[in-house]
Amino acid sequence: MQAVDYEDIVRTGPGTLAGRYLRRSWQPVYHAADIEPGSAKPLRIMGETLALYRGASGALHLVDGLCPHRGTRLSAGRVEGDAIRCFYHGWKFDAAGQCVEQPAEESRFCAKVRIRSYPVREYLGLVFAFLGEDNPPAFPLYPEFECFDGLLEIDSYQRACNYYQNLENALDMSHVGYVHADNVGAFSGIGLGRSLSAEESDWGVEYSFRRAKDGQLRINHFGMPNIFHMYALPNDPEIQWQESLFWWVPIDDVSHVQFSLHRVPATGEALSRIRARRQARRSEIDLAHQQLAEDILAGRMSLRAVDPKRCDLVRLQDDIAQLGQGRIADRSKDHPGLADVGVIALRKLWRRELSAFAQGKATKNCTGPSAWGQRGAPAGECKAELVDVRPHVEVDWQLRALAGPP
Amino acid sequence: MQAVDYEDIVRTGPGTLAGRYLRRSWQPVYHAADIEPGSAKPLRIMGETLALYRGASGALHLVDGLCPHRGTRLSAGRVEGDAIRCFYHGWKFDAAGQCVEQPAEESRFCAKVRIRSYPVREYLGLVFAFLGEDNPPAFPLYPEFECFDGLLEIDSYQRACNYYQNLENALDMSHVGYVHADNVGAFSGIGLGRSLSAEESDWGVEYSFRRAKDGQLRINHFGMPNIFHMYALPNDPEIQWQESLFWWVPIDDVSHVQFSLHRVPATGEALSRIRARRQARRSEIDLAHQQLAEDILAGRMSLRAVDPKRCDLVRLQDDIAQLGQGRIADRSKDHPGLADVGVIALRKLWRRELSAFAQGKATKNCTGPSAWGQRGAPAGECKAELVDVRPHVEVDWQLRALAGPP
Amino acid sequence: MQAVDYEDIVRTGPGTLAGRYLRRSWQPVYHAADIEPGSAKPLRIMGETLALYRGASGALHLVDGLCPHRGTRLSAGRVEGDAIRCFYHGWKFDAAGQCVEQPAEESRFCAKVRIRSYPVREYLGLVFAFLGEDNPPAFPLYPEFECFDGLLEIDSYQRACNYYQNLENALDMSHVGYVHADNVGAFSGIGLGRSLSAEESDWGVEYSFRRAKDGQLRINHFGMPNIFHMYALPNDPEIQWQESLFWWVPIDDVSHVQFSLHRVPATGEALSRIRARRQARRSEIDLAHQQLAEDILAGRMSLRAVDPKRCDLVRLQDDIAQLGQGRIADRSKDHPGLADVGVIALRKLWRRELSAFAQGKATKNCTGPSAWGQRGAPAGECKAELVDVRPHVEVDWQLRALAGPP
Repeated sequence: MQAVDYEDIVRTGPGTLAGRYLRRSWQPVYHAADIEPGSAKPLRIMGETLALYRGASGALHLVDGLCPHRGTRLSAGRVEGDAIRCFYHGWKFDAAGQCVEQPAEESRFCAKVRIRSYPVREYLGLVFAFLGEDNPPAFPLYPEFECFDGLLEIDSYQRACNYYQNLENALDMSHVGYVHADNVGAFSGIGLGRSLSAEESDWGVEYSFRRAKDGQLRINHFGMPNIFHMYALPNDPEIQWQESLFWWVPIDDVSHVQFSLHRVPATGEALSRIRARRQARRSEIDLAHQQLAEDILAGRMSLRAVDPKRCDLVRLQDDIAQLGQGRIADRSKDHPGLADVGVIALRKLWRRELSAFAQGKATKNCTGPSAWGQRGAPAGECKAELVDVRPHVEVDWQLRALAGPP
Repeated sequence: MQAVDYEDIVRTGPGTLAGRYLRRSWQPVYHAADIEPGSAKPLRIMGETLALYRGASGALHLVDGLCPHRGTRLSAGRVEGDAIRCFYHGWKFDAAGQCVEQPAEESRFCAKVRIRSYPVREYLGLVFAFLGEDNPPAFPLYPEFECFDGLLEIDSYQRACNYYQNLENALDMSHVGYVHADNVGAFSGIGLGRSLSAEESDWGVEYSFRRAKDGQLRINHFGMPNIFHMYALPNDPEIQWQESLFWWVPIDDVSHVQFSLHRVPATGEALSRIRARRQARRSEIDLAHQQLAEDILAGRMSLRAVDPKRCDLVRLQDDIAQLGQGRIADRSKDHPGLADVGVIALRKLWRRELSAFAQGKATKNCTGPSAWGQRGAPAGECKAELVDVRPHVEVDWQLRALAGPP
Repeated sequence: MQAVDYEDIVRTGPGTLAGRYLRRSWQPVYHAADIEPGSAKPLRIMGETLALYRGASGALHLVDGLCPHRGTRLSAGRVEGDAIRCFYHGWKFDAAGQCVEQPAEESRFCAKVRIRSYPVREYLGLVFAFLGEDNPPAFPLYPEFECFDGLLEIDSYQRACNYYQNLENALDMSHVGYVHADNVGAFSGIGLGRSLSAEESDWGVEYSFRRAKDGQLRINHFGMPNIFHMYALPNDPEIQWQESLFWWVPIDDVSHVQFSLHRVPATGEALSRIRARRQARRSEIDLAHQQLAEDILAGRMSLRAVDPKRCDLVRLQDDIAQLGQGRIADRSKDHPGLADVGVIALRKLWRRELSAFAQGKATKNCTGPSAWGQRGAPAGECKAELVDVRPHVEVDWQLRALAGPP
């Protein structure tokens, strides 16, 4: 089998191997609530500039970012109905990307001009897009995140390093027991090497930890190519480990965005109390973890000096761990150990899949974890209460991150 | 004929094809009022660092930017009479670039040291320089901008993209009818494709628009290699379309400066009223269009949210259109139409001329538009009132732009 | 002999010729007082990221900057006793670089993991390190900076240009007579070409100036590869030219740090007065010379407009001279004269040594200036009063400079 280099994994721009591979799946690209009817936004995903807009009808559309006429950024244009009109000369494109008007042309030239339009779908508060060349696969549903009594929290943050550093961090329970140990009543002893196992699954990798003292088992699922289903650290007295879904999407090769959904089951009074505590917590956060991480890594500040009330401490800790590896980690000097069984399984599966993909061979047909789809109501009928939980400082950072290069 | 690439057009550093071609013409490089007797300024033009200084006598001089002794930036030195003395060791160069003193040398070594001195001339409030290798051509005069009753407004701004994006924007009347339509009572229907024509002229390209409904004609002239004579949008109740001259000069390959002259004929009370309105308008502007454009292109702000009183709206619109193409536009995906007849003529003429120049063949002998020099008084006797109309925020930006790299 | 290029001199990253050459000597890398027991700092020296930490016992240790496990920056970790523990998974390394704990591994894997540990020594208020491959040479002592009655001032600053520009500046007394002439009662006539001589010495270059009018002699010593022993300009009424030691250490190829020691002999009342004046002077400085230099080089500000009370004027003048040459000076257009005899000697010696080193031949065995070690008490018993004299703005800049890349 053809060997795949580390470079093949970390580079995701148009035409790259990993770029084409990631583009075969639906990817979250934006918060649905961040774009109002009649407005357009520039989007930077895997090194490409795109234009996301919401028609007057409320429908979302995603098209190429640069006008095919003379290359101006389309997101600066005007939304008209479900079409977008370029700022520069008013060329108008319908939702399918067909040019339908060229005010100065007085001809049928527009019939010959078409831009790419990408399938896009709002789901669970996020905007998902399919950026690949072929027909999109079936849209993946996550029924257990739709159909329950409680809050579905929507979140995201940006980190200024390669997306793959965050993937590896997920399949690494031993860092949870160490880095995040002091800020929560963590699952004691989590992540010891002999208690971890990582097996290839239908979806990707089943990554689990069995606690020695009582045999208690915790299972996380990594889904190819960049999804994670896990139980996040408890951070509320009335919620245990909370079920979450993560996606890590490259902005470019040196920064990425994580989109997250947290499932918070609750009803009645408990739901009200949890919602109130979450909102209070969210409004306390006024320091950007990204800036704190930069200061700490530069030695200008100590983590001990950070007031954990004013920032998202878990993210800050992960920032330090991941940014501390550089914008694109040098993996040639790594010394993986027994506790890195998850990282090793991830790398092995990714290399095998990428190599098969490079040769045009059939690649893994990934489905969600087998347990899914067996609880609750029919998919597509979200009953949970959607709440965007990004702190204000995170939203600012987010907009900067996805805006594309100057 | 030898093919000329797009790269050959956009790169203008020392030794490049377009760089050598542009250097064969006199180019505006500074505002004459921005440099006082006895002071020196660094200048960054076409990727070169130069030192512009004004002698005690008031005469302007332009020399190489780095001292030939040990390479320090000469503009940080001291002006003495009409000579400049290096900050580092006091080597002194006369206006012709001859080294005339080396305080520590105690020898005649200075006679052997000479730097390049460039012909420079103040004209209509601007500083023009000849940066070419050979003898400079005759200095081009624009008598109709000298000899009239009224104001001659001097202006400039910097834009962080390749100069050629602005050249193309000029020979594109259809963007005027669209982008700039809403902020002025524009010449209705301007820029429709069938009404445009672009013909090679003695000077460069005669670019015209004939309005269908009444046959009214509007003619702009592009002059090789980077000049434009046009009628700018009316922006004062007592002035119609105002005659303007533009030059687009590369700072480096990813930024350029536009110098402009506006001819505002008026006398008596009308002149006073116009002058007062212009000054009031100028002092209102406190937002840099460059910063606004960056925010709008990033999706952090909408053009609709901009208070047009606080910025130069036309420039902001052009910023969005031109910066939206990237620092150096990718032209490989363009779809020019009928309304791009001016852009097509510009590209064709530039490629032909650059190709001829590359082969050492005679290139077009450009003269001003044929109508010129037929009105008014003898050239060289400016009677108009010179007024610098740059808003304060523009001057700040300008100084940063031309200061050269750190 | 193999020719050495200018590039070979200015590039000092790992594996480069000059990088390996400079790493054969002990180099100052930090202020001893800037790192407290139990804390760690990232260090950027010659393009390498290192982790400097001080154990609970007070002992300093210097190790590789990135954890060998998964590449996270070690300085973000925790100091435990005389060991450092990685932030990410808690791998613990003793002062010799041996991995002694891997919390999640439950195996003897740690015995196989080792990082480089570098010899480090505190001396005269500075932290010196040996970053070379082989055994370190004897640690150089400077007895006359230890054993005297008075103040030993410790200083440093960062400059955003190649280190070699500062080396050349030192062996250039003619700039002192010119650039620095107006801010002190300088040694009149210093630096005239015929009065300068530069001879190779045991240590490097003996660089001297003999004043014509009275035959008075001033001798400075350059020590290979990057040390200077000189008499600095008088800046206190009770101190004459003060004896100083300088080191110029690359941070990377476009910035460096100068560490300095100033020997200020004084006793009793005079000592008190001098100390008080120095502290008062230090607290006056609230403008960073680096920022001023950038403004002046960009033509946004004139040196005449700078209040010399609020900044370090000598450094500002040197900033302008050295940064004005660019981040890495282009030396191909230099015109050295008689007054550049020191620069010429420096270049010649460096090229010869680097060429010999490249061929594995024995290189110069450098010792301190012959006069040294003949006065005062036995080396290693510092009696002088150590005082850190960096202004507050300098400390800020310093921390930024040495923190390493994001």
